[in-house]
Amino acid sequence: MRWNELDKENCSLARTVSVVGDRWTLLILRDCFLRVRRFDEFQRRLGITRHVLSDRLKKLEASGVLRRVPYGARPVRHEYRLTEKGLDLYPVILALVGWGDRHMAQDGPPMVHLHKTCGEIARAETVCGHCGEPMRARDVIALPGPGTAAGDERTGHG
Amino acid sequence: MRWNELDKENCSLARTVSVVGDRWTLLILRDCFLRVRRFDEFQRRLGITRHVLSDRLKKLEASGVLRRVPYGARPVRHEYRLTEKGLDLYPVILALVGWGDRHMAQDGPPMVHLHKTCGEIARAETVCGHCGEPMRARDVIALPGPGTAAGDERTGHG
Repeated sequence: MRWNELDKENCSLARTVSVVGDRWTLLILRDCFLRVRRFDEFQRRLGITRHVLSDRLKKLEASGVLRRVPYGARPVRHEYRLTEKGLDLYPVILALVGWGDRHMAQDGPPMVHLHKTCGEIARAETVCGHCGEPMRARDVIALPGPGTAAGDERTGHG
Repeated sequence: MRWNELDKENCSLARTVSVVGDRWTLLILRDCFLRVRRFDEFQRRLGITRHVLSDRLKKLEASGVLRRVPYGARPVRHEYRLTEKGLDLYPVILALVGWGDRHMAQDGPPMVHLHKTCGEIARAETVCGHCGEPMRARDVIALPGPGTAAGDERTGHG
């Protein structure tokens, strides 16, 4: 399997990983959700080279996760904003944050999340879209779906 | 910022990314949740070198996500199983799969998930642990938490 072919794998995880499965990309996305939008601010916060940052931003734009929006004049500059497709990555961000909060935050969570809908500081939970009960690995059996290719028959969960 | 120092960042996402923010690692974890346990089967499914696979498995064991369990005799071999800490990564896997199903699966999801609790094929949803309503980026404000270091004041969401 090659990286530039991951998006062609018959697996939704591999396809997502082809877009966001890179450390810098995940950190850039975290910052996008914290309303960072401008090149120089990404660079200052992340401390990466302009070359690497520019490469990752271009890829995120090409995959429709970010869009460039002009601001200022002479010269026109651009800022980067999450598209709807990009905003849909929020569960990935919350899941990564949640695991870190649980297993790697001895002093407590560095950030907490205020849910405006109910006004409470709360953690995200992953639940079944049908019954609303938790969806843990032991509660789930993975089965071939409509987009399964012949030969992809590995199913089951831990 | 350096990769070998990401776990020291005052950010739960960066800390999690220091453990799982690598393409191969995410694909190995996917396979673990599909009950793949043995070195040769990981290698066959992923098509990576023994060296890379061995490196990633060692790191996952060192970080407490996988544990090695002996099987067979003469020679004793080992298989890799998710620990409780590893099983807690399931929301990350489901979130990555969910985004791919939604945005990169024109023929429908390659896999579906049977929730044993209710007996239905269902998608995972990310909801507020307090009120149970969806936790989307626009519904959430990130605020400094108990583990915040002085100077880390960026808050807010897209």
